[in-house]
Amino acid sequence: MSDQNPLVIFTPSGKRGHVAPGTTVLQAARDLGVDVDSVCGGHGICSKCMVRPSFGDHAKHGIHAGEAALSPVNAVERAYDAKRGIKPGHRMSCQAQVLGDVVIDVPSESQVHKQVVRKAATTRVIDMDPATRAVYVEVPPADMHTPTGDWERVQTQLKETWQIESATLSLAMLTQLQAALIEGKDAVTLALNTAREGAPRVVGVWPGFHEPALYGLAVDLGSTTVAAHLTDLATGEVKASGGVMNPQIRYGEDLMSRVSYAMMNPGGAAELTDAVREALGQLAAELADEAGIATSDIFEIVVVMNPVMHHLLLGLDPVPLGQAPFALATNSALDLPASDIGLRLAPEAQLYILPLIAGHVGADAAAVALSEAPQKQDPLTLIVDVGTNAEILLGNKTRVLACSSPTGPAFEGAQISSGQRAANGAIERIEIDPVTKEPRFRIIGVKQWSDEPGFAKKIGRTGVTGICGSGIIEAVAEMRMAGVLDANGLIGSPEAVGTSRCRASGRTYEYVVYDGSAEGGPVVSVTQGDIRAIQLAKSALYAGARLLMDEFGTDTVDRVVLAGAFGAHISPKHAMVLGMIPDCPLEHVTSAGNAAGTGAQIALLNRAARREIEELVHHITKVETAIEPKFQEHFVNANAIPHATDPFTGLRALVPLPDLNFNAGDGDGGGRRRRRRG
Amino acid sequence: MSDQNPLVIFTPSGKRGHVAPGTTVLQAARDLGVDVDSVCGGHGICSKCMVRPSFGDHAKHGIHAGEAALSPVNAVERAYDAKRGIKPGHRMSCQAQVLGDVVIDVPSESQVHKQVVRKAATTRVIDMDPATRAVYVEVPPADMHTPTGDWERVQTQLKETWQIESATLSLAMLTQLQAALIEGKDAVTLALNTAREGAPRVVGVWPGFHEPALYGLAVDLGSTTVAAHLTDLATGEVKASGGVMNPQIRYGEDLMSRVSYAMMNPGGAAELTDAVREALGQLAAELADEAGIATSDIFEIVVVMNPVMHHLLLGLDPVPLGQAPFALATNSALDLPASDIGLRLAPEAQLYILPLIAGHVGADAAAVALSEAPQKQDPLTLIVDVGTNAEILLGNKTRVLACSSPTGPAFEGAQISSGQRAANGAIERIEIDPVTKEPRFRIIGVKQWSDEPGFAKKIGRTGVTGICGSGIIEAVAEMRMAGVLDANGLIGSPEAVGTSRCRASGRTYEYVVYDGSAEGGPVVSVTQGDIRAIQLAKSALYAGARLLMDEFGTDTVDRVVLAGAFGAHISPKHAMVLGMIPDCPLEHVTSAGNAAGTGAQIALLNRAARREIEELVHHITKVETAIEPKFQEHFVNANAIPHATDPFTGLRALVPLPDLNFNAGDGDGGGRRRRRRG
Repeated sequence: MSDQNPLVIFTPSGKRGHVAPGTTVLQAARDLGVDVDSVCGGHGICSKCMVRPSFGDHAKHGIHAGEAALSPVNAVERAYDAKRGIKPGHRMSCQAQVLGDVVIDVPSESQVHKQVVRKAATTRVIDMDPATRAVYVEVPPADMHTPTGDWERVQTQLKETWQIESATLSLAMLTQLQAALIEGKDAVTLALNTAREGAPRVVGVWPGFHEPALYGLAVDLGSTTVAAHLTDLATGEVKASGGVMNPQIRYGEDLMSRVSYAMMNPGGAAELTDAVREALGQLAAELADEAGIATSDIFEIVVVMNPVMHHLLLGLDPVPLGQAPFALATNSALDLPASDIGLRLAPEAQLYILPLIAGHVGADAAAVALSEAPQKQDPLTLIVDVGTNAEILLGNKTRVLACSSPTGPAFEGAQISSGQRAANGAIERIEIDPVTKEPRFRIIGVKQWSDEPGFAKKIGRTGVTGICGSGIIEAVAEMRMAGVLDANGLIGSPEAVGTSRCRASGRTYEYVVYDGSAEGGPVVSVTQGDIRAIQLAKSALYAGARLLMDEFGTDTVDRVVLAGAFGAHISPKHAMVLGMIPDCPLEHVTSAGNAAGTGAQIALLNRAARREIEELVHHITKVETAIEPKFQEHFVNANAIPHATDPFTGLRALVPLPDLNFNAGDGDGGGRRRRRRG
Repeated sequence: MSDQNPLVIFTPSGKRGHVAPGTTVLQAARDLGVDVDSVCGGHGICSKCMVRPSFGDHAKHGIHAGEAALSPVNAVERAYDAKRGIKPGHRMSCQAQVLGDVVIDVPSESQVHKQVVRKAATTRVIDMDPATRAVYVEVPPADMHTPTGDWERVQTQLKETWQIESATLSLAMLTQLQAALIEGKDAVTLALNTAREGAPRVVGVWPGFHEPALYGLAVDLGSTTVAAHLTDLATGEVKASGGVMNPQIRYGEDLMSRVSYAMMNPGGAAELTDAVREALGQLAAELADEAGIATSDIFEIVVVMNPVMHHLLLGLDPVPLGQAPFALATNSALDLPASDIGLRLAPEAQLYILPLIAGHVGADAAAVALSEAPQKQDPLTLIVDVGTNAEILLGNKTRVLACSSPTGPAFEGAQISSGQRAANGAIERIEIDPVTKEPRFRIIGVKQWSDEPGFAKKIGRTGVTGICGSGIIEAVAEMRMAGVLDANGLIGSPEAVGTSRCRASGRTYEYVVYDGSAEGGPVVSVTQGDIRAIQLAKSALYAGARLLMDEFGTDTVDRVVLAGAFGAHISPKHAMVLGMIPDCPLEHVTSAGNAAGTGAQIALLNRAARREIEELVHHITKVETAIEPKFQEHFVNANAIPHATDPFTGLRALVPLPDLNFNAGDGDGGGRRRRRRG
């Protein structure tokens, strides 16, 4: 405190220091390493640098700040206030000079590296540090005695005003820059993309001072659905979210059938590529429309996806991924022009693709790792991203393992007789009375349960249309708990179960959840075939998790995280009854929402996160389910509901799991039993 | 020599050192920094690394090399010899192991950085160090237990085999790489462009081992003509050369009229851009055709041109170059995808454009500086690149100055009544008898002079069609020496000169060089208008040179270099009589041929030369003729032939310059005189 210069204390950072009298608050902030935004570089134009000085006694800091601690409001501030208004008590930090001891609050909207909160199933905080930002530069006019090009004059100012070096620009941007400098009278605003440190690239040019709309798109490109969030790169605010079906479904529901299509049909891979690129372009256009912006305002896109989708989106041959050794064309993170994959966004929009983990473990799994960060946690956490292909991660601070497992689309309601996607009219919740074997259910779009007053009236409007992924999981688990289904997955006969809701369907039985045929509606039932499809899917999932547990050397996990858009809707209890996930205290089973999508958003908004995941993937142990001999064994054991050999002691203490066998004397398969009967 | 390891001495480099017994000669060369080529990286496939061991006594080196100093010819070499042949006495340096003291000669064809000789007007030696080269890599097969992408496995091998780090590749190249690795069974040949140190880029991919044809195009893009050389990037050999007219001529013969066209017509600049790009593409296709290669074998193109052509080629607005302050959009050297300017060469072909010196002094002048290197010379050298726009450099080791001067197209035969481009039938040499005033001349395509036996017969085939640029210079100078023309540039009357070859033509006189009208041929004459056009052109040239001499602080120069395709054909004596160039001993006036084109070739074949000129342009003093007040004064004084005020003492001692004035009492202009007479 012996320093005679005024003391400036910034809040909330708490950073403090003495500065020469007359130093602007913005300069003081920069000198002290305080994060204060500025687009115009201190020219008093952009208002991004607003701060709130705090006058009076600051006992905590031991200073008294008089009104004279800052220079009076000046002409620049008055002009801005008259034109656009300055909030009471705020000052432009590029104009206000420090004259005495003072406390300066930097509101979060004036911070470059502000934090934004994602409210998904779990709340997530993302530090803003996007690759794309806008900067304003004023350049000295051209001088024929020291001839320097427009771009070279701009480069000099980028260095002097913004400490930005080694910027590059394309010929197209140079053409725009030349025109913008003339129109803007030697002043321009540039959008710069610094995807990699040290290599900023000009991606947008506007004459004079401009606050450009800079948007980014975070995409989770799934085998079945494509989900995207359109985000304001300056504020981190999500402006629009949406999804479309992956149009490749018409070439094959699961990944391997698409790979086969590519292998068997000349030009097939290109068809698949065109289809998904077009869908992505349309989704971008729709979200832009919804947000009221132009697609040319989208400067960045981050995509996460499994390896097959990765290759198909990029136009790489997916066929090597169909067989061992599952050779990837590249596994590194990619920075590409978005136009390379035919996207019409801003002309210089940049595409970032997260690294792949292995031939079967993709950028989506990497995104889940980025979002859930098992490597930062003490409890041993199993993360299951349920989709057509399940991404499974297991780990804690000591080690992280990953695999993927081909669950197929059953969990997404496909291959299920009454299955449908999660939309109005779909049964999403179900309970079966263990005594009467009668079901009650809820459909999407109606609050009441089916046995509650008003339900009948409501469904008049929406109708009961089918059963969605989370509904089928609950249905099968409830059937098991209610004794409609035995441990082998066989649906009992009406006689054995004691309800007419079990009825013959071909050579097996089905359980009728809802019969709307009297009103011309559908019959929603769970057939033996549905049970088999769910068994295949859940066995694959469980076997993958078991394989990771073997590799880790454990029989139990501390936490289970259900990720995926779908995971958010799964009831942990029912998932565990089904034996999708290992036995674990139910309160330790949580949902992470679309963790892959969240990972994509993190990568979109924070460059350090990109470096973090690029580094992390090198340390993740990859387990290849397709070639592990034990996978088959785990798969077979996991066929039973919940499991043939694993005890599920914790679960059994909570829920009834009747010890039934509808196929007495034959422990395997109802199908054969039926045939024998027939 | 205490080292027990064998001593290897390489010639011609003289580099020597001890290596462990069993070291391959190639490795020994690398260890000792000896330049030995290799495409296959030591796999015994490419034969690029052939060397010639020298056995016996080497008194000079103090060693005796026995036959056993190298390992015997091995199976790889025998196989190669059987298939393609190995020259007697040669060994593959990647196979031959050093076992004892030996002297190894590296023939120039086995050196990467070999020297190639350009035989132009002057002989030039270029050290080969092109940006594009081919490398062969064998990668370990994909392994699912340590999953790494194709590209990552290639990158690892690039590092291990070639010490090449940080290579990048586009999505299109990645697609090709994936296919090539499959077809090549985990072996590929890559073409790499390392335009900038530390950033090699994959520009071509072939399965297995391949010796790709890698060609480069060096282009001198002039206002009037576009000249190009197609060169083998591995050997430096020029495979085809050619030129076309710049199609922009239809929009304006000189640069400023093209700038006007762009300014006055919406879309005009784009028309000019399209025209020149198309011509360049066609020229590339024609040269490729002539050389028997595909345009897709062209991996690099280097272009030099003046600032207006620069902006027009790149699609930048040329209008700012039409008026002070002559602001360039960029003045730096550019590395761009050749596809950015619409060229269809190899898909990843790279375009390099030399830096501009100033708003009026272009990359062509930079190329002349690179080729002629005045900054490395003791004598004060004036370099004049004669074209529609003249580039003028003056300098020596202490300093280099540059300017450009708008000479117009007169020196190229345009704006001359009987002018034509240099083609068969054009008068290129001329002499006028000072007594009889009778001319004798030579035409392009005929060896004999017009007064020699056989000439009449020869012209029956080719005809006398006009007069080309070098011809008009000689004609005017000879007219001046023979007393047909006075110092003011006025053609005398038949009476005053004493020959009927001077005859009235409108209000002035013309001098008839050839009258073919009796045989239905043309009359080739030099009119008063022609003289005025030549005076304007030569005055601009001389005034530019004078301005540089003023700035340098000198009245004389030690050497004059006439550059430009046209410069090679100019007779120094006649140029000096005309007063195009300052007085200087005639034997110190030399021609450099197309120095700008040579500069482009140097930049094409040697990366260090690019860095050299990028650095040099910062140290060249730019003189802007358009705004220097003294330019007008110099221009007016230079109007006289040879000059109104500069004495040309040296010249006058050698040639007669009759002291005539055909416009007695009026020192200026025959035109006015004629009008008075009329």
